[in-house]
Amino acid sequence: MNHLYLCSAQQKRYLALLKDAALPNLLITEDISKANIILADPPKFAPELEKAESLQWLQSTFAGCDALLAKPRSDYQLTNVRGIFGPLMSEYVIGQLLTLTRHFAHYRDAQLESKWSPVPYQGLTGKCMVILGTGSIGAHVAKTARHFGMQVMGVNRSGKAVEGFDKIITNTNMTEAFSKADVIVSVLPSTPETKGLLNRDTLSACKQAILFNVGRGPVLEEEGLLEAIEGGNIQHAVLDVFSKEPLAPEHPFWTHPSITTTPHISAESFPEQVFGIFVDNYTRWLNGEPLNYQMDFTLGY
Amino acid sequence: MNHLYLCSAQQKRYLALLKDAALPNLLITEDISKANIILADPPKFAPELEKAESLQWLQSTFAGCDALLAKPRSDYQLTNVRGIFGPLMSEYVIGQLLTLTRHFAHYRDAQLESKWSPVPYQGLTGKCMVILGTGSIGAHVAKTARHFGMQVMGVNRSGKAVEGFDKIITNTNMTEAFSKADVIVSVLPSTPETKGLLNRDTLSACKQAILFNVGRGPVLEEEGLLEAIEGGNIQHAVLDVFSKEPLAPEHPFWTHPSITTTPHISAESFPEQVFGIFVDNYTRWLNGEPLNYQMDFTLGY
Repeated sequence: MNHLYLCSAQQKRYLALLKDAALPNLLITEDISKANIILADPPKFAPELEKAESLQWLQSTFAGCDALLAKPRSDYQLTNVRGIFGPLMSEYVIGQLLTLTRHFAHYRDAQLESKWSPVPYQGLTGKCMVILGTGSIGAHVAKTARHFGMQVMGVNRSGKAVEGFDKIITNTNMTEAFSKADVIVSVLPSTPETKGLLNRDTLSACKQAILFNVGRGPVLEEEGLLEAIEGGNIQHAVLDVFSKEPLAPEHPFWTHPSITTTPHISAESFPEQVFGIFVDNYTRWLNGEPLNYQMDFTLGY
Repeated sequence: MNHLYLCSAQQKRYLALLKDAALPNLLITEDISKANIILADPPKFAPELEKAESLQWLQSTFAGCDALLAKPRSDYQLTNVRGIFGPLMSEYVIGQLLTLTRHFAHYRDAQLESKWSPVPYQGLTGKCMVILGTGSIGAHVAKTARHFGMQVMGVNRSGKAVEGFDKIITNTNMTEAFSKADVIVSVLPSTPETKGLLNRDTLSACKQAILFNVGRGPVLEEEGLLEAIEGGNIQHAVLDVFSKEPLAPEHPFWTHPSITTTPHISAESFPEQVFGIFVDNYTRWLNGEPLNYQMDFTLGY
């Protein structure tokens, strides 16, 4: 018999899904120490990780597991969710990008003043987007950008071609791509290697680019961004993730005219979709097959 | 020798393009009565139409030629521009749609108050979009909506299948489609047949739909829209075109909380693109070949 412990902001919805599914040989337990399987939101569950004495497999409800990977423990299988965030991330990135390029904020203000005030604009066709991270999320954003006629370059470690991108560049040549970018999108996870990758030096290669951080906060050096905006390298930044969340009320990003902040909502984990991945993995677990979407504790993704 | 008269809000850019192109057998004239060819923005040129005594061919810089078609005169060839507005219209529709579904206005307000305030949302995947008008613009918007996982129904007169749409419905069954629509987009031109097509009666079939009018203003009965919002049939309307433009400062649409207004900017005519179409047609003119994109004075499109 398997014992499952559940820990999520969406507790009720997952419980309802678990009851409906009535998975074989699975009991839901409220005693964390007895659970060999855990289904959890990483930041919510991380403080309790050491209490999970019987843990064998933890299915994350998020793509990003940095809250768990930051802990010294690695004596269990950790799986995340993949393939479901691409469409939501594309919606966020394209929606926010068009809000900027098509001047929706200007029109909202003009409407408040009952003013008919058209302003010139350019379409996205022919513009260049550089995406840091070429996994399933990055590749989906790339396809969306290409649908809108953009040229899309991906940055990864291997430099190997990835479907959906016009070109792949290795991370050592990242700033070369930055110099051509109209838009830069980071979907990178938080790992020792990505920490502070976007900093004053690397961003200085940009020429009035629009920068998105929708991966993880620590990838972007906050002070460096402010300097890059000051220096004209970054025209506007759209930030959904931050080194410390929630963003403190006194943080300078809130009031900066060239920064758009949102509260980590670019791609939410919808329980129905996450649960489908869990059920699939649980079936593999029962059959002794390798689990999908295993995280590497050393690489951090 | 051909004599061209130019009349556009982008006069300087077109003049520069004409000079650069140095088209054979073409003189630019400022004497409207001598011009056999006219390149013009329809609303700007319409008041002068009767002075064009030598007119043989008028190349519109817009898709919509209602300002010219409203005149009694039809003794000339009228061509419009097609195929260049689809991408811009897709940007506008998807950008505004995501602004609504992903609550960007809420986040903008929250940012102004330095408030971390996530709100629930749903993605576009699986939602239903109904597009009125299945020409090149409608078909492009359809493809974009399908890229985002939406089901797309088109409404036209013939009911014949059109590439890019999941389903086509004849206009006589339009309200049936409305009852299933999460989003309705009208890209219809202004013709006697489309006038007031979106009215209190037809809109009453909708169930909390988001309505876009990006074609021409007269397609939508303004009073009927206000009633449909009041009655819960329309959740929100995004309007880029109006029966009378510019929208009068005292018009109730400006201040309505469920209406987004923009000043007819959803798909602009960029001179470089329009000029490409003109050059192609002028070559056909010189060779005595049929011109592209001829308008039918009776059908009105």
